[in-house]
Amino acid sequence: MLAARFIYLNGQIVLADQAAISPFDVGLLRGYAVFDLVQTVKGGPFLLPEHLERFRSSAGMLGLTVPATDEEIATVIGDLLARNGHAEATIRMVLTGGVSPDGMCYDPKTPTFLIMTHDLFDVPEEYYRRGARLITREHRRELPEAKTTNYLTWLRNHPAIDEAGAIDVLYHFGGYVSEAATASFYIVRNRTVMAPDEGVLWGTIGSLVLDLARVDHEVISGPISLSEALAANEAFITSSVRGVVPIVRIDEHVIGDGTVGPVVTELMARCRRAMYEG
Amino acid sequence: MLAARFIYLNGQIVLADQAAISPFDVGLLRGYAVFDLVQTVKGGPFLLPEHLERFRSSAGMLGLTVPATDEEIATVIGDLLARNGHAEATIRMVLTGGVSPDGMCYDPKTPTFLIMTHDLFDVPEEYYRRGARLITREHRRELPEAKTTNYLTWLRNHPAIDEAGAIDVLYHFGGYVSEAATASFYIVRNRTVMAPDEGVLWGTIGSLVLDLARVDHEVISGPISLSEALAANEAFITSSVRGVVPIVRIDEHVIGDGTVGPVVTELMARCRRAMYEG
Repeated sequence: MLAARFIYLNGQIVLADQAAISPFDVGLLRGYAVFDLVQTVKGGPFLLPEHLERFRSSAGMLGLTVPATDEEIATVIGDLLARNGHAEATIRMVLTGGVSPDGMCYDPKTPTFLIMTHDLFDVPEEYYRRGARLITREHRRELPEAKTTNYLTWLRNHPAIDEAGAIDVLYHFGGYVSEAATASFYIVRNRTVMAPDEGVLWGTIGSLVLDLARVDHEVISGPISLSEALAANEAFITSSVRGVVPIVRIDEHVIGDGTVGPVVTELMARCRRAMYEG
Repeated sequence: MLAARFIYLNGQIVLADQAAISPFDVGLLRGYAVFDLVQTVKGGPFLLPEHLERFRSSAGMLGLTVPATDEEIATVIGDLLARNGHAEATIRMVLTGGVSPDGMCYDPKTPTFLIMTHDLFDVPEEYYRRGARLITREHRRELPEAKTTNYLTWLRNHPAIDEAGAIDVLYHFGGYVSEAATASFYIVRNRTVMAPDEGVLWGTIGSLVLDLARVDHEVISGPISLSEALAANEAFITSSVRGVVPIVRIDEHVIGDGTVGPVVTELMARCRRAMYEG
């Protein structure tokens, strides 16, 4: 996932290596920023309206407004994709509170708005065939319903994630699981799909997958304790960048029989069809 | 507190309006950054060794290393102060994980290191004479022992702070108070000074003030419940930018008799003497 040659910054498409963010940007000095990631499918952004809705919602929770219409953003993304020439891409939109000369106050009317594209993030095929692992940490994201740029706990746990051969870290708090650092988390119990519903970011792909599950499975949203998660028949994560990934181990606990189960296998297939044949 | 003409960025002093942070800086994209603020007293940085120690400690908690010696940093600060010509200044040091082309991985060997100076933050004299207010929020900072750039909860609560005529927001969690968003928090009960000791940033000025208190007061570090805080005889906050500020109201609760009490009055005087006559 390498950065591309051109990016969009505050109304203009510029060369990425000439794009300058002010050292007084409140997104840098105070972490006051939101973002969203969109995947392309067959060259075009997938679920862009849903991602834009979430991006605007995240911005609103910080008192910010995305300074462009959906149509304008779609045009910029099309232009960036054409100029940067990815086969497929991950599109990143970032909105900060803008420049803050005192490192504290900012004018919500002059936010910093960035759109950049990356080559696709490489997901090992083995994750889909044999399942992936999660480690767990007790943590609750600040303002979890917003996709803010605060990934302190995730980045600090990167070495532990790598050491465990895990794909991500699953957060739990007060005995209940919420989400992975970069993905939504779900379990399957007796063929019922269960989704944590509080203290989580609304998942774009996750929501699609739950809809695909509802065709012939019960889907229940509600609290899931960590011990329920560990005792699940199957588990999976979803993210725009990775689609549906089966989870077969959480810390040292084997989920189900440790192989990719039938419900997750079916949901992976349905999700791929929805993305690539939809 | 306006930004000055020159700043230091990665080894060089440059014009602030020409200084460029990469849009791929992980401090911007993932909030992965720490900072520290130092106040000048009579033109020179006050408690610089203590601030540098804290800054290095914060950096270490994120797996980062400040890429300069104390002597080099002191020289840069002296140079910036001379060029920017403040009467007195607030010095801001910022360290991020550096440029991350994929918005995820960064090389801790190439961090982004910034030093900037601001004119002094204006603190109304009335706060010292009549005391200030705090509002409260249930919140626990992520990695509270590090001074990270994550101030989401503070900035989101700015309108509420302003509306209440408050100076800051006091955080409590699980029934216990910790610190204000931008200051340490202490109470006085029966002339004993009490300091929360867990889940708080080590205060540079706070530590100095506790030492000044120990001369003739008992000082106890330990958990302080919110109800103990509200029932205190006196309360105060400390920060490099503001020194000792008496707190006479927390939300709708009057602290003590609502005026600046004798212990805080004495500590304010001692702190000023230590800063300006020390």
